[in-house]
Amino acid sequence: MDRIFNAVDLRRALGGAEGTVLVPTMGNLHEGHIDLVRQARQAGGPVVTSIFVNPLQFGQGEDFECYPRTLEADCDKLAAAGCDLVFCPSVTEMYPETQTFTVHPPLADQLCGAHRPGHFEGVCTVVLKLFNLVQPAQAIFGKKDYQQLYLLKAMTRQFNLPIRILEGETIRAQDGLALSSRNGYLTEAERAEAPRLYQVLQAAAVRLKQHDTLARVEAWATDALQQHGWNVDYVSVRSRNSLLTPENGDGQRVILAAARLGTTRLIDNLEVDVD
Amino acid sequence: MDRIFNAVDLRRALGGAEGTVLVPTMGNLHEGHIDLVRQARQAGGPVVTSIFVNPLQFGQGEDFECYPRTLEADCDKLAAAGCDLVFCPSVTEMYPETQTFTVHPPLADQLCGAHRPGHFEGVCTVVLKLFNLVQPAQAIFGKKDYQQLYLLKAMTRQFNLPIRILEGETIRAQDGLALSSRNGYLTEAERAEAPRLYQVLQAAAVRLKQHDTLARVEAWATDALQQHGWNVDYVSVRSRNSLLTPENGDGQRVILAAARLGTTRLIDNLEVDVD
Repeated sequence: MDRIFNAVDLRRALGGAEGTVLVPTMGNLHEGHIDLVRQARQAGGPVVTSIFVNPLQFGQGEDFECYPRTLEADCDKLAAAGCDLVFCPSVTEMYPETQTFTVHPPLADQLCGAHRPGHFEGVCTVVLKLFNLVQPAQAIFGKKDYQQLYLLKAMTRQFNLPIRILEGETIRAQDGLALSSRNGYLTEAERAEAPRLYQVLQAAAVRLKQHDTLARVEAWATDALQQHGWNVDYVSVRSRNSLLTPENGDGQRVILAAARLGTTRLIDNLEVDVD
Repeated sequence: MDRIFNAVDLRRALGGAEGTVLVPTMGNLHEGHIDLVRQARQAGGPVVTSIFVNPLQFGQGEDFECYPRTLEADCDKLAAAGCDLVFCPSVTEMYPETQTFTVHPPLADQLCGAHRPGHFEGVCTVVLKLFNLVQPAQAIFGKKDYQQLYLLKAMTRQFNLPIRILEGETIRAQDGLALSSRNGYLTEAERAEAPRLYQVLQAAAVRLKQHDTLARVEAWATDALQQHGWNVDYVSVRSRNSLLTPENGDGQRVILAAARLGTTRLIDNLEVDVD
């Protein structure tokens, strides 16, 4: 498996390759990422995984500095999963000059956007750059980062990028906790508590299907988490089609949540169909 | 010469073509555009000219509705100039859904940006879309729209687009007036007055070379235009490298101006090297 550090070598290595599938990551890979790589392999051409901890998507006071960098272990896992090429540029390589052009996405003040100013602007900008560097035919993103996936699909469509976006299902630990690099920040006690996030989403889904109101379901779930020491950023029931509050008759829903245990912010979501 | 109206036909027509050169225009073509097409032909592969009056780059009260649409005459000129393909999508084709993703450019509150809110956001967004639709190896823009050219070069670089940007010199009428579709809006008396814009830029350049201060040169040029009935948006001396106020020692300058005669807004610029 080739390891490539800059754009020039990347274009040389990929030159003319058809049907490339890109798996953008920030490294510190877990089974969720590896599952994306496996799915990418089934999708066709050469698989390129990018590993880049993108400073543009971290806010002030967030964990950019201490975000885990584990390149050697990541490359071992990727090679074993059948990835063909790892692109792991430096910050200077991705941003040789101040990035004064950015992508301005919608919903930037909604859900995670409301709690992480500039986050999705940073995500969309770096993904657009990676798309232009790798020029993949397909790219895959996990559904755990639901708002991110929604936005990247919409960006690809609205910017007429000739790229098909694939979706990876959320991979969970045995106890239901969605895999995330940030799980590594949890203390033992927090790790034992963490599965409650998904349990509460599941219970909220039952209430939704029983036609409880959105406001009541959101308030119930928030309370259920707060009672166990969670600091809740939001629990929100949205339309899967717009990520906005569902209109009457739109039964394709998703419950999204973000909440903190100690200093660690966890997110999860669950799709629900309501009659 | 093929005429293509939608993205599907465009991809089919271009499929696999190497070295395409794109000439983005809003139509109503004059000798300035045709010169870009000629230069594009010399640059290599097939030449694609896009004709699209982009609503996103027009502000409220601007001339989107009455901007001249002259497709048949444009196509005759392009065929004669050796253009291979014209891409002339409808507004619905370019914006099948509300464009909620936009490119956020720098310098948006400077020069023309200060007088046309949202203009460069609209320009950069549509050009990014056209780039992704046509996937050219090169694209050419005229130097008459100097701030636009500067921004599109920077966008291409910062978004890692694999596209080389070519620059077309400004084409002028015999009396010095820069060719522009908007010259067609001028009355006979205004058309006789219009060449003063370039004359004032030339006289300002002489003053700059004689080391008159920027503020004095700008004030002199503004006054020279106002005395002849021009409504001046700005006359500004900038660094060609940053489009900001030149720092001491940066002699690579450009004088940019925008001013209105009656209801018609004209722009022009002149590069000047100062010791």
